[in-house]
Amino acid sequence: MSVTIVGTVALDSIETPFGKHEKLLGGSGTYAGSAASIFSEVNLVSIVGNDFPQEYTDYLKSKGMNVDGIKIADGKTFHWSGYYEGDMGQAHTRLTDLNVLLEFDPVIPDSAKNSKIVFMANIDPVLQKKAIEQFNNPECVILDSMNFWIENNLNELKETLKLVDILIINDQEIKQLTGKQNIIQAMREVLKLGPNRVVVKKGENGSIMFDGKEFFICPAVPLDKVVDTTGAGDSFAGAFSGYIDKADSVCDEVLRKAIVYGTLVSSHTVQGFSVDVLKTLDEEILLDKYKQFNELVAWPT
Amino acid sequence: MSVTIVGTVALDSIETPFGKHEKLLGGSGTYAGSAASIFSEVNLVSIVGNDFPQEYTDYLKSKGMNVDGIKIADGKTFHWSGYYEGDMGQAHTRLTDLNVLLEFDPVIPDSAKNSKIVFMANIDPVLQKKAIEQFNNPECVILDSMNFWIENNLNELKETLKLVDILIINDQEIKQLTGKQNIIQAMREVLKLGPNRVVVKKGENGSIMFDGKEFFICPAVPLDKVVDTTGAGDSFAGAFSGYIDKADSVCDEVLRKAIVYGTLVSSHTVQGFSVDVLKTLDEEILLDKYKQFNELVAWPT
Repeated sequence: MSVTIVGTVALDSIETPFGKHEKLLGGSGTYAGSAASIFSEVNLVSIVGNDFPQEYTDYLKSKGMNVDGIKIADGKTFHWSGYYEGDMGQAHTRLTDLNVLLEFDPVIPDSAKNSKIVFMANIDPVLQKKAIEQFNNPECVILDSMNFWIENNLNELKETLKLVDILIINDQEIKQLTGKQNIIQAMREVLKLGPNRVVVKKGENGSIMFDGKEFFICPAVPLDKVVDTTGAGDSFAGAFSGYIDKADSVCDEVLRKAIVYGTLVSSHTVQGFSVDVLKTLDEEILLDKYKQFNELVAWPT
Repeated sequence: MSVTIVGTVALDSIETPFGKHEKLLGGSGTYAGSAASIFSEVNLVSIVGNDFPQEYTDYLKSKGMNVDGIKIADGKTFHWSGYYEGDMGQAHTRLTDLNVLLEFDPVIPDSAKNSKIVFMANIDPVLQKKAIEQFNNPECVILDSMNFWIENNLNELKETLKLVDILIINDQEIKQLTGKQNIIQAMREVLKLGPNRVVVKKGENGSIMFDGKEFFICPAVPLDKVVDTTGAGDSFAGAFSGYIDKADSVCDEVLRKAIVYGTLVSSHTVQGFSVDVLKTLDEEILLDKYKQFNELVAWPT
């Protein structure tokens, strides 16, 4: 099967305590697709300008991604510039040039319409809805969003959430979305909006999944050095989606493993700029990391 | 064997979104002792004024605590008044009347000097050092501290840390203590100061233990309702200390279990005011909770 990811493909200019780089390959779709492609076939649906470097297209293809759904429009590629300080928990934006992203109207290629797993990375919830509606009964629709849409397009986001199976969102955003300060209460609220599962990403504090009855809690990998946190959440969600697509069924056991693999992949993402570390990451390396990581959370019974 | 706890016994006036109460039984020693006494014999060393209610003394004794080390001084008991808002992550102080705590000079009763486990709850690091030096070669010295001492008595705290085996501290405090924004780096720094293990408490984000080689990560229990977070950290450390005291040896397996029991006990503490919920908590209940909690972190292998 295949997983189809709808999101941004961008150029990122980023400064962190570890360096400063101009127009790196970035975007929610790029990170999610790079992570998902470790596990499964990926169709990436996005838009870039005609300035988009060939080497970046080559990279996406080299990961086995089907890029038929990436429209090349006249104009410039979406460009984000930002910086991080201290523990890099928070991105500070210097500049957001939406450019061709302003005319993004996702068209799912016929070859992708039967995807089992659909991941709507962070874009306008109206576009997410339009994209979801083009699929032929996907087994699982996964969606990410962010504070900008919660603040400015809450009603549209709520409409979209009615079509979603699993919402992946961070701890600040879920409080904002639900008005609940307690994350457990906030997760219960989300389940009233449409999704039957919710995953809360808490950065260096790991993640928590809830299906209305059971929780699954996964810590983050302890890291001495974090180079650039851009794309951590996107690659978490991408690996999660890709792992589920590869599995036989969307059962609790698979979802728990998907969370762990999402955690492992995102722990690699943040150890370099852009998708640098994802370039060489494969399932064999991750299987080893899975076992090592398990030692960190193993309780004596 | 027995665990000896040196800390405060206080009267707390507390307001949270769930109510307002005057002069509840509180203090780091009280919470830690209440939690430790679930698992082991506890000697509590502290000071109170002659206004200290008999019913509170009766409670401490009812938990089996040896209170010979609690001096009753002329004057008023240490009184803290504070409030919590929102997710109750942060205590706001209204008033701190140190009262007889100003003359606290801990004297370890002879009957407690052979304790295997010693827990120095949060008090002046100079007093912690004086107390530690009175013991006859304890197997494990555990210590808690707080931002006030890091800001005002850093050199004294560092002197005391040379005598400590396990430092238990929260995420903000360890950054302050070490000057490191990355918690993993901060944990490595702590091990240069004396302790051979460090446990970082992260509230609703669980805790992490490090011995210089291996990490152990334990999430918090997901809670829909938190009534009062006062004493959460003290009861975590108290249960941790009590569980170790009861165990045969201070090995990695025991310490991991101690972290989990600390987590479970503190999850109960915060579900009521003062030590209300700890009054009825016993090992049998906790064994059940241990199994349930394990389900929340169980990875498919």
